[in-house]
Amino acid sequence: MLERIGFIGLGIMGKPMARNLLKAGYSVTVYNRSRPAVDELVEEGAAAAESPQEIAKNSEVVITMLPDGPDVEEAVLGLDGLLAGANRWLLIIDMSTISPGAAKRLAEAARERGVGMLDAPVSGGDKGAIAGTLSIMVGGNEDDFKRAMPIFEAVGKTITYCGSSGAGQTVKACNQVAVALHYAAASEALVLGAKAGVAPEVILKVLGGGLAQSRVMDMRGPAMSQHQFTPGFKARLHSKDLRIIMETAREYGATLPFAALADQLYTALVQNGGGELDHSALLTVIEKLSNGSIGDTQ
Amino acid sequence: MLERIGFIGLGIMGKPMARNLLKAGYSVTVYNRSRPAVDELVEEGAAAAESPQEIAKNSEVVITMLPDGPDVEEAVLGLDGLLAGANRWLLIIDMSTISPGAAKRLAEAARERGVGMLDAPVSGGDKGAIAGTLSIMVGGNEDDFKRAMPIFEAVGKTITYCGSSGAGQTVKACNQVAVALHYAAASEALVLGAKAGVAPEVILKVLGGGLAQSRVMDMRGPAMSQHQFTPGFKARLHSKDLRIIMETAREYGATLPFAALADQLYTALVQNGGGELDHSALLTVIEKLSNGSIGDTQ
Repeated sequence: MLERIGFIGLGIMGKPMARNLLKAGYSVTVYNRSRPAVDELVEEGAAAAESPQEIAKNSEVVITMLPDGPDVEEAVLGLDGLLAGANRWLLIIDMSTISPGAAKRLAEAARERGVGMLDAPVSGGDKGAIAGTLSIMVGGNEDDFKRAMPIFEAVGKTITYCGSSGAGQTVKACNQVAVALHYAAASEALVLGAKAGVAPEVILKVLGGGLAQSRVMDMRGPAMSQHQFTPGFKARLHSKDLRIIMETAREYGATLPFAALADQLYTALVQNGGGELDHSALLTVIEKLSNGSIGDTQ
Repeated sequence: MLERIGFIGLGIMGKPMARNLLKAGYSVTVYNRSRPAVDELVEEGAAAAESPQEIAKNSEVVITMLPDGPDVEEAVLGLDGLLAGANRWLLIIDMSTISPGAAKRLAEAARERGVGMLDAPVSGGDKGAIAGTLSIMVGGNEDDFKRAMPIFEAVGKTITYCGSSGAGQTVKACNQVAVALHYAAASEALVLGAKAGVAPEVILKVLGGGLAQSRVMDMRGPAMSQHQFTPGFKARLHSKDLRIIMETAREYGATLPFAALADQLYTALVQNGGGELDHSALLTVIEKLSNGSIGDTQ
């Protein structure tokens, strides 16, 4: 059984996840570029390391939870990276959201060193990370997946094996396509309704009772109606995910006109100062294009 | 209480609706451009009329269920139309899907003749029409709505008063925006997944369990995975609804880039021979653009 865990990346997601591993009784060594989060977890029982390389030497499994692809590449392949310090039995689990292509290439580089690597991106946001109820989408060797299952269960709830290396990231990309377009659907339905004089509550009630229902509308529709955009999941992160999605579409030859439009309009949202708002703030882009507010009917 | 009902338009939706009114004990007089459906309902107890004008003379309320705006205009405003034969107490209920602007103008023309008119488009398809479980979205005078409630209850289940004249059609338009974009979301997620090597079942399972869930994906996702596109609701009718949506957006000054793209790609679906397929066949347009099939991973 895997007991000594290294954890790299103590951000808004990583810190509560590392904490849940400590609570589950694992021995956890942490590394983070800025120090305060490290000190916090050391007080709660973690050990601190000075580099990914040092983490690799002292761990059976290392989890990375980093902002973007290049960060993961540096943590794995860098001069003082994980592979520089890895024993042959090391298992790397990247839980960041990066492109499926990058995930495949990293897993291949690890395999050449005899090191296993899973891609295991999550959904459920910081609330899910704190509560230990994340959804986890896993790609890679199925035996590695089974070995890692108790670790996944300490930080998540719905854990799905999706296929070979990259498949976890692919499913995460598909998830983010759907969520972005569901926000587009809710936004355009609310703006069209308001422009023609129908209040958001009526739209949400009728659409939610039929074929037009979506969880996005159920969960975020009422807040959207009130222009409450406290994250949740930040628009700038969904914009980053859409960049990954469009790169992946190009790499694998998928033509995604709706996702491409979402990519453009999430860029507009970020450019207009909405990057720190919840991703449901896509509504404000449609409102701005229409020079109106759905509040006008209330 | 309203007891003598006229019914104009005995198509795939209108015929079972008129039948449900007969079953509920109403006296029903029917009119339809082609004769076989009239004969069928006469055998079941309906009376037949030779024109909308004649229907208006013999009815307290007249329901229209016609393919498009111009059909409703002719039935209401034509030389032998409803207003030509209407008594002052007549109530017209248009249950067709037409533009909110046209619905407002027709209600105003009726009001000038002392005739009440509700717009009451439905969702739920021919199955809902047969079972009497349609969702009905109603715009117009609220007292007229209350008077008509027993009639709505004979043909539908979820009945919502949406606001003044046109509001029912507006909510229907919003509903069709959302449904079209949810099919776009499901289609692009499935195509991206398949191109990157992940089977549709895995995508549907993971997305359906989280924020990316939609009723469209729950109800139609498995059939889409198998390329089963038996309608359901025909793509050419959703294409017509998107034309109405874009006209309405222009009339009221709403800018809807995602709906505009859906309008274009539903046009492509119809042009490529898919008009008689279920509207979930939007998938085939994304597949064609990507020169692939989501069946390739199975």
